[in-house]
Amino acid sequence: MFAPVYLDHNATTPVDPAVREAMLPYLSGQYGNASSRHEYGRAARRAIDEARSKVAAVVGAHASEVVFASGGSEANNLLIKGAAACLKPGLVAVSAIEHPCVIRPAEQLRKRGWTLQKLAVDGDGRVDAENFQALIAEQPPRIVSVMLANNETGVLQDIETLAALARTAGACFHSDAVQAVGKLPVDFRRLNAAGVHALTLSAHKIGGPKGAAALILDKRLDVEPLIAGGGHERGLRSGTENVAAIVGFGVACELAAARLAATAAHLLALRGRVECGLLGQGATLFGQAAERLPNTIYFAFPELDGETLVGQLDRAGYAVASGAACSSASPEPSHVLQAMGVAPGLARGAVRVSLGGANTVAEVDGFLATLQGTVRRLQGLTAMAV
Amino acid sequence: MFAPVYLDHNATTPVDPAVREAMLPYLSGQYGNASSRHEYGRAARRAIDEARSKVAAVVGAHASEVVFASGGSEANNLLIKGAAACLKPGLVAVSAIEHPCVIRPAEQLRKRGWTLQKLAVDGDGRVDAENFQALIAEQPPRIVSVMLANNETGVLQDIETLAALARTAGACFHSDAVQAVGKLPVDFRRLNAAGVHALTLSAHKIGGPKGAAALILDKRLDVEPLIAGGGHERGLRSGTENVAAIVGFGVACELAAARLAATAAHLLALRGRVECGLLGQGATLFGQAAERLPNTIYFAFPELDGETLVGQLDRAGYAVASGAACSSASPEPSHVLQAMGVAPGLARGAVRVSLGGANTVAEVDGFLATLQGTVRRLQGLTAMAV
Repeated sequence: MFAPVYLDHNATTPVDPAVREAMLPYLSGQYGNASSRHEYGRAARRAIDEARSKVAAVVGAHASEVVFASGGSEANNLLIKGAAACLKPGLVAVSAIEHPCVIRPAEQLRKRGWTLQKLAVDGDGRVDAENFQALIAEQPPRIVSVMLANNETGVLQDIETLAALARTAGACFHSDAVQAVGKLPVDFRRLNAAGVHALTLSAHKIGGPKGAAALILDKRLDVEPLIAGGGHERGLRSGTENVAAIVGFGVACELAAARLAATAAHLLALRGRVECGLLGQGATLFGQAAERLPNTIYFAFPELDGETLVGQLDRAGYAVASGAACSSASPEPSHVLQAMGVAPGLARGAVRVSLGGANTVAEVDGFLATLQGTVRRLQGLTAMAV
Repeated sequence: MFAPVYLDHNATTPVDPAVREAMLPYLSGQYGNASSRHEYGRAARRAIDEARSKVAAVVGAHASEVVFASGGSEANNLLIKGAAACLKPGLVAVSAIEHPCVIRPAEQLRKRGWTLQKLAVDGDGRVDAENFQALIAEQPPRIVSVMLANNETGVLQDIETLAALARTAGACFHSDAVQAVGKLPVDFRRLNAAGVHALTLSAHKIGGPKGAAALILDKRLDVEPLIAGGGHERGLRSGTENVAAIVGFGVACELAAARLAATAAHLLALRGRVECGLLGQGATLFGQAAERLPNTIYFAFPELDGETLVGQLDRAGYAVASGAACSSASPEPSHVLQAMGVAPGLARGAVRVSLGGANTVAEVDGFLATLQGTVRRLQGLTAMAV
């Protein structure tokens, strides 16, 4: 099988072999419904309980604070719409660079009488705390959502400062931590003490399977279920639990915690190497002055279309992204880069490299060499076309 | 490993080995995000497209009418709440015997100005068409949901007649077909022509994995997404697709279609054998006079608690249910039996046997013998206690 070098770990990650092994019994003899009152059911329930503890542990939360969901998009919709349903309509404030699965549900709230304010970011993609403070003084938001790390740029937000500000307004504060977990230490107890009520985690971004995610939720926060029914997950998320995926998620969290320090150091070294190479080739790096995830490099070459470059690199054996995977059906330049004030011409050239723990120096060197050849060829074509 | 005889297929089913085999590559080398524009992503997209056609085929729908979701509960919530969000508040009518994942979202609509009417059933658990017609004459509902087959009793509803009545009121008509598919022929084209706009299907009820389901949706019906975000599934269900589970769902549908006739005949023969034995032992069968699923037997012995009986049978090596799996956390007698007018004392004794294609004559004979011994012992204990 043709196996291109995978440099798109912010879109999804390979399932870790230990995760797959742990899942297999639950796709085989251990097929019970965790609600069933017989041995098959009890075995499934025990497996979910164990996974819940592991997922809680990766962010220092209590098992009882974990609400399992089918994915990060569901968890984000659950928090935004579920918290809003328990509040009087008011202002919902989300950063302008949130993933669409935070922005769209916030937009849907308009139908229910809510006002949406997008929080501005600076040229490096950081939410502006002074702007946020001014907004709070003007109209206190009831719900705030700012991601821990951006999926495109990898830029980190100062969540503790923002949450502390939001707390002065009595707002519910949520943070999408899908890209942060496994790459950075994330401590829900500390964040919760600062005023963060909920975090979103996703299995398939950290070596787990698609189909499992969690909302880490301060139990003092009232949330209406998005999926109502049999009353699973303390009534917050009904539906037969996806036992295999939840078990895989638990193991992925365990591995992520155990490997965090080593992985982060390895990723940071590789990232430095890629960035050096890119700057040498004349690329622009987005969010360069900001603290960023150790695995994410987002860049563009002037005059070169990102989609075209991604297609050429794919043919040459390197899998990278031209923007957030989930929005790549849309031809518009990235809303993240637009919010950062990047000129549309340069934004259309954006290419994202997101590294994984298994990537090697040889792979990134191969990528840089291939990129250089590809860029030169495309620049030559562009020059001819002009 | 201790492997009790599994007689609880309405709760969940073993994953078919062919399903598991088809899933494994997507938990291994084929881990791409289907939105990614490189070979890993395209391979995932092709797999989803193929599965979509297979899922559509099992109910005679078009692939473009399939909206993938994480489970039946999500698909039911999507339809009920999503259709309501596109309509003026009015009356939502659901049968009194719907699964909680239809009843609860219908109840949630009250907060949005809707009125909920539960449709009465007769003593055998069939929705009363005359009552429904009278309701329509009095106050035409905007949304109607009646399941094809009940999860507890297995009783079938005359969906075509009910949908034709609902159509005279211009109502959106939905049917939860989760328990019907794989056990009965289900033809969405024919149902759609009669006035059914949407059907819910679930993978794990038909030998597929937990974590995949579908809403089969008439494209003329406006539905607001429950999970909004990246715009997956034609904007109706955002979130990275669970490729492995969707692939497994496709294969499960293919197998269900191929095996339907043989499976149904086998199940019906086994069901007859179990029912004969139960009647001989003095059990009451629920829904006995109604057309029912070929695999479902719901019964009670006067004065014997269903939970106790299920526990004893579990210890003796037979996995059966005392009620709908999803509500088994609640100690109340089944809402389905209550709606059928079954006396609470008898309803508390309810035990459900739901057979699968792999169950054998020897297994059901063993079950009947064990049941008889258990019932006699428990009746003796009861007699002594009195």
